[in-house]
Amino acid sequence: MKKIKLDVYTLLKKIRDTKPVVHHLTNWVTIYDCANIIKVIGASPVMSHAKEEVAEMARLASSLVLNIGTLDREFIESMKIAAVSANQKGIPVVLDVCGAGATQFRDKKSFELLDEAGIDIIKGNVSEIARICGEDIRTRGVDAAEVVKDMIGLAKELARKRECIVVVTAKDDIVTDGSKTYVIKNGHPMMPSIVGTGCMAASIIGAFAAVEHDLVYASAAALVCFEVAAECAVKKSSGPGTFKEKLFDCIFHLDKKILDKMQKIEA
Amino acid sequence: MKKIKLDVYTLLKKIRDTKPVVHHLTNWVTIYDCANIIKVIGASPVMSHAKEEVAEMARLASSLVLNIGTLDREFIESMKIAAVSANQKGIPVVLDVCGAGATQFRDKKSFELLDEAGIDIIKGNVSEIARICGEDIRTRGVDAAEVVKDMIGLAKELARKRECIVVVTAKDDIVTDGSKTYVIKNGHPMMPSIVGTGCMAASIIGAFAAVEHDLVYASAAALVCFEVAAECAVKKSSGPGTFKEKLFDCIFHLDKKILDKMQKIEA
Amino acid sequence: MKKIKLDVYTLLKKIRDTKPVVHHLTNWVTIYDCANIIKVIGASPVMSHAKEEVAEMARLASSLVLNIGTLDREFIESMKIAAVSANQKGIPVVLDVCGAGATQFRDKKSFELLDEAGIDIIKGNVSEIARICGEDIRTRGVDAAEVVKDMIGLAKELARKRECIVVVTAKDDIVTDGSKTYVIKNGHPMMPSIVGTGCMAASIIGAFAAVEHDLVYASAAALVCFEVAAECAVKKSSGPGTFKEKLFDCIFHLDKKILDKMQKIEA
Repeated sequence: MKKIKLDVYTLLKKIRDTKPVVHHLTNWVTIYDCANIIKVIGASPVMSHAKEEVAEMARLASSLVLNIGTLDREFIESMKIAAVSANQKGIPVVLDVCGAGATQFRDKKSFELLDEAGIDIIKGNVSEIARICGEDIRTRGVDAAEVVKDMIGLAKELARKRECIVVVTAKDDIVTDGSKTYVIKNGHPMMPSIVGTGCMAASIIGAFAAVEHDLVYASAAALVCFEVAAECAVKKSSGPGTFKEKLFDCIFHLDKKILDKMQKIEA
Repeated sequence: MKKIKLDVYTLLKKIRDTKPVVHHLTNWVTIYDCANIIKVIGASPVMSHAKEEVAEMARLASSLVLNIGTLDREFIESMKIAAVSANQKGIPVVLDVCGAGATQFRDKKSFELLDEAGIDIIKGNVSEIARICGEDIRTRGVDAAEVVKDMIGLAKELARKRECIVVVTAKDDIVTDGSKTYVIKNGHPMMPSIVGTGCMAASIIGAFAAVEHDLVYASAAALVCFEVAAECAVKKSSGPGTFKEKLFDCIFHLDKKILDKMQKIEA
Repeated sequence: MKKIKLDVYTLLKKIRDTKPVVHHLTNWVTIYDCANIIKVIGASPVMSHAKEEVAEMARLASSLVLNIGTLDREFIESMKIAAVSANQKGIPVVLDVCGAGATQFRDKKSFELLDEAGIDIIKGNVSEIARICGEDIRTRGVDAAEVVKDMIGLAKELARKRECIVVVTAKDDIVTDGSKTYVIKNGHPMMPSIVGTGCMAASIIGAFAAVEHDLVYASAAALVCFEVAAECAVKKSSGPGTFKEKLFDCIFHLDKKILDKMQKIEA
């Protein structure tokens, strides 16, 4: 892979200019952070989950973000209704398979969403994506490093099988549609030290997917934006609490110069 | 309208001295912020939604705040029970018609709440209040500016029709009972740049309504307090993330001098 | 009682080294704060409530934290399933009786949890614990000071009756198993000035209980850690908003020197 440059700022500007509505059905832990990151990047968050209104709400939106972090049966049913409505309108659907692999219920519901609705972008960390690929890390008896080594291969395989984009967040993030692959090397160890950065990454991907049809490109650009802002925020913070507040500040103030200078991406 | 001065501090002091309980049934996105803004202003927040306990909880409270942001069918039923209990006790009920106009379900449930319980204060932004007034902004083919121009008229009409106070939050906020009208010109563009300021405004109105029978006056005083604090917070912040934290700091530290000096209100 | 020193840091280091999973079924108000405090202290939070998965999730965990703050009927049923699963695995269960005494429903459900599952640590403030002890503060006609005076006695009685640890948070916190008693004198008046410190204290107790079998000791050490961090955070903050962010920073940075120097504990 070779180092490349993406014109991330043009997409960010398009978000700020057009303020797309990003409809979320997400977990109750980070729901504020997901809404607020969408707001401060310049888009318009909507969080709604009642089965009576999600189809109509999805039709008002420019993208849909699903996150199963605090799933229950009814919530997944609402997700399916929203996703099908989004599919009918033709807007992109992002699925964060938060916690996949932890319980059988979570795995079952993840696969139901993937089977019963059109998911355009699957996003997770290494172990979540491995599980969605059908891998059982524990029974294979491999250590984390081995799984990571093979992660690009696994992600590509999943992308081809599901005909979607796969985003794996880790130290180096992977974005692939099975043929085109980006690796984003931005970010900071402080990010996984707080709750919510993974969920916010999925939301930001939703915002970029709302303004750019090339969803591999949109997802890569989204991660660059989010992680460059995180690097800026770390410099201005004194620990994980202040880091999160500065992260909102830094995303709000992102400009072309910072994005061009700080991005670290390979393709 | 003429510039006037309100003795906002006397009400704020009454809140701090008597620590009224403000019962909320609110959305899952900003529920923490609503509780915390009530706490830092000196009152006592209670968030509870189980249909088995909301009537009893409302009887312990000095005001009730309803916010339909992440409504579902059961939640609205609990709201009705709480509101009827509040009506029986004679404590004020604030309804934030958060997202009204977005879906038919949201409109229907807003009208059910207004029809089946006594709502003392309806609060929303321009498009939400317009919808509750029965206006369909999109089909009328008018632009936002025209709607705003007519907003005082619409708010008065709604206040008279529903026999309640109507609060419209915008650059200039409107508070009216159909005859007496206040316009609050405090605030800052940073406020709508984050998620939660609208919801927190409704909570603060709930706190002021808990200590002052004149609900037009209470609502106006609440908005002055909240928005003066926001102006102070902007000066101490470096973006939307730090703004929100400083907002809590500034409300906590509000004093008579700041409130007298910075308020911008017309009647 | 005499001033003593606890080797709190050894337990904190064990948490950071082993990253135990702390499973929560908690309220929707402070759920982010509970998850994040667990993360920044170095443990691994899991928040999940679906009845289909809580038993399995509890089996993955090293401790379970229940908080009834925004209870409803179904949520309590999930708590029971999770607690019984935790009991079977032999991991400690912490119950925060948040809001006990406010409604009959809340009292009834608290007693159901205590009767139908093995609760290892009951945590509440003075009035909540008094109510769980069977006391009716209002009908007894005593003032708060008198109750507090008798609080160690009440807590010991409850600990013996329920065969568990009782934690009472107040200016001076009490931790007792009915015979061994610690009083923690750390903390700051800013703590009850924001929403969430009580809930976070229960979470931190869950993290310490995950790495130390002596649950009286674990609970006392947890409170020392949390309150020493709070004292540090107050010094670096300008009000309740910045205090909370600095609290996360300070817990993240806690070291042996600070803990040894600042702890104020009696036994």
